[in-house]
Amino acid sequence: MSSPSIPKGTRDFSPTEMARRNFIFDTIRQIFKLYGYQQIETPAMENLSTLMGKYGDEGDKLLFKILNSGNYLSSVGDTELADRDTNKILKSITEKGLRYDLTVPFARYVVQHSNEITFPFKRFQIQPVWRADRPQKGRYREFYQCDVDVIGSTSLLYEVEMLQIAGEIFSKLGIEINILINNRKILAGIAEILGESARITDITVAIDKLDKIGLEGVNKELSEKGIPQETILKLQPILHLKGTSDEKLNQLSSILASSEIGLKGIDEMHRMFKYIAVANIPCNIELDITLARGLTYYTGAIIEIKASNVQMGSISGGGRYDDLTGIFGLKGMSGIGISFGADRIYDVMHELDLFPQGTENTTKVLLVNFGENEELVSLEMLKRLHKAGIPAELYPEASKMKKQFSYADNKKIPFIIIIGQDEAQSGMYQLKDMKSGEQFKLTSDEILSRLEM
Amino acid sequence: MSSPSIPKGTRDFSPTEMARRNFIFDTIRQIFKLYGYQQIETPAMENLSTLMGKYGDEGDKLLFKILNSGNYLSSVGDTELADRDTNKILKSITEKGLRYDLTVPFARYVVQHSNEITFPFKRFQIQPVWRADRPQKGRYREFYQCDVDVIGSTSLLYEVEMLQIAGEIFSKLGIEINILINNRKILAGIAEILGESARITDITVAIDKLDKIGLEGVNKELSEKGIPQETILKLQPILHLKGTSDEKLNQLSSILASSEIGLKGIDEMHRMFKYIAVANIPCNIELDITLARGLTYYTGAIIEIKASNVQMGSISGGGRYDDLTGIFGLKGMSGIGISFGADRIYDVMHELDLFPQGTENTTKVLLVNFGENEELVSLEMLKRLHKAGIPAELYPEASKMKKQFSYADNKKIPFIIIIGQDEAQSGMYQLKDMKSGEQFKLTSDEILSRLEM
Repeated sequence: MSSPSIPKGTRDFSPTEMARRNFIFDTIRQIFKLYGYQQIETPAMENLSTLMGKYGDEGDKLLFKILNSGNYLSSVGDTELADRDTNKILKSITEKGLRYDLTVPFARYVVQHSNEITFPFKRFQIQPVWRADRPQKGRYREFYQCDVDVIGSTSLLYEVEMLQIAGEIFSKLGIEINILINNRKILAGIAEILGESARITDITVAIDKLDKIGLEGVNKELSEKGIPQETILKLQPILHLKGTSDEKLNQLSSILASSEIGLKGIDEMHRMFKYIAVANIPCNIELDITLARGLTYYTGAIIEIKASNVQMGSISGGGRYDDLTGIFGLKGMSGIGISFGADRIYDVMHELDLFPQGTENTTKVLLVNFGENEELVSLEMLKRLHKAGIPAELYPEASKMKKQFSYADNKKIPFIIIIGQDEAQSGMYQLKDMKSGEQFKLTSDEILSRLEM
Repeated sequence: MSSPSIPKGTRDFSPTEMARRNFIFDTIRQIFKLYGYQQIETPAMENLSTLMGKYGDEGDKLLFKILNSGNYLSSVGDTELADRDTNKILKSITEKGLRYDLTVPFARYVVQHSNEITFPFKRFQIQPVWRADRPQKGRYREFYQCDVDVIGSTSLLYEVEMLQIAGEIFSKLGIEINILINNRKILAGIAEILGESARITDITVAIDKLDKIGLEGVNKELSEKGIPQETILKLQPILHLKGTSDEKLNQLSSILASSEIGLKGIDEMHRMFKYIAVANIPCNIELDITLARGLTYYTGAIIEIKASNVQMGSISGGGRYDDLTGIFGLKGMSGIGISFGADRIYDVMHELDLFPQGTENTTKVLLVNFGENEELVSLEMLKRLHKAGIPAELYPEASKMKKQFSYADNKKIPFIIIIGQDEAQSGMYQLKDMKSGEQFKLTSDEILSRLEM
């Protein structure tokens, strides 16, 4: 029999990895709740009609599709089979797919349950998603997303709340961050004054790469996309904006003076910075007018968060969308949200050695097993430890001490209680501190009060 | 556009449902950890080679299968297509399936990672599973299992630990339970003294139904399965066993005197009851020799748990298996585990109204929004509340009071802070208790210390 394996791009999580992942998830969940967000969950499988067409042609291909149960060929025509028409056959043999992100299921949820929901609806969702992407370092076919969104209000207070949430989460995790913000309306304003409103996507996709390919690269890409040289020249001062966020906004005010939407974006940005000053968020927040984040459904603020001391893509990001639920027939629901990438956050914390000592500890004390008579006394002690809420276990057999100690060692159990024949009779048990090597003779009460600390 | 929906047999979970479900999961997780069990997770998708043949023919059909990506027909022959040979085609167009339970992935995990694992390996796993079953009341196509297992030891201490864990979890949840236990070896002994060892499955499947179809029904089924009348007669005293568990065991000792395996089962049971007496588990534990639980991989103890005051199938169950990892090539790994059914536990708690008050509360206090000037003062207060760890939110717009209060009402927020123009100037804020209707004028410090309680 060949040794078993799991599908490529998927992972098992060991106890140590799970303890660290839970440290991240628990921190995120706790802050989401502190700000009044409520958890929902949606099914792993959605109807393909819900998912298809929401992530572009490429996304449709990356959806994992579930084969219909029973005679899955029953509604496939002979001609389609003979023609090997994979697209047509697909429609007959599968009608469900695995969740590709948490945003589309959230939009579907809001529309489907709009009658039961209190708006503004502050929800968070922490669940795995699946993508049939080519697996590579740091890219998996199954990974968790942690999304927080509020839908049903246009208030800019929520823009700032997203920044506060991110600031607080990363400060709790010990990760220093830079927050970059921009506004889709400013990007629209830039496209407008360039006289290229219809090509806003081409333009923003290009300038989004300024970081990676430099100014020359951006200009080359714009030119290749057929943006006239004159227009590219007009764009240069905008790409050269320098100074504080306030200074940049002031310069933009003159540049975008003739664009109504551009000025609206600047006004939103000014109001955000006013709130930000009061909220006193403990990290650097900077206007970056090249930030676009590709997602075409953003209509206002755009947010991107990077870890300061490590080479890594963004570890969180999001933005405002004015019509997310429109795709399911519910118009006029503005919302804003950000998503936290658990895997990248894990990698950053691992690289910077940020997991607190003891994160992976589970059992606090192991009771050594000396055989039939002594183990009954140990069982009594175990019961008292559990009652006091102290994670404890009794070794299951009277194996050699060395074996029992190495079990404690491997499981990183910090204390050992020894109840042999003498100890069972005298009621004075041995407590060994595995780190210092110290050993104490104590009553059960004394042991309890020591371990409860 | 038609209103969106989800696949039949799957569910969305609302904030209220999630809060209640998390109450159950958190309780279960906390007790698992108290006994030294460590969490793992496995991927939602497993290779079909891992899953197929592990759940019987019926189970194979109930596996959700994932269509291969790209040109999924590429390795299907023309003849197979023309013949519509669904079984043969299946092998070429799908190689992954969704997890059907947590037991097989656990066995696969242990074999695949045996070099990194410290044995005895005490693991728990709380994840959804998927079955293409016909959906009906209380039966879903996606549902969570909460499994706790220890593998790599034959110690009966672990049998009792499973009972302790169950006893403690249900006592924390407020559910009164009955625990039924049996031993596969006793069942094997019974089959042996009847002279029908080879037909142990037929016999145990039939007597397992004593509860539902009565003695006559059982005898009829045995007869229909071709068990001779004489043998059925010999079985009658066993089905009529009465008295305490000890009394039943004593009677069984004489009945099974000539069966080595039967006596071994009785001995295990005696030793278990000795441990149980010391462990002092707070619920009724009873020997039920008709208990079989169908699962053919059990080799020792069999455990089933039912809620006392409600009509419902078992809410937890499990047993010992001596060769679970054998299917993946790792022999001689004995283990024991039980599984908790989150959905049935939810239904029991709902029916008996056992969810503690406040389970679904998230936000503790809402700050009313009076507009641009006041909201900056409220933002300051909000920051202080969050710093003190108090879940709080500021209403996002200066809407009518009625609307803001009804938001608090719908979200079951118990307190409201009012900072209007007067309050902002005087620094004396209003705190309203939504339940009692009382309203107090307090400084921000006083509000903090009240809400921190």
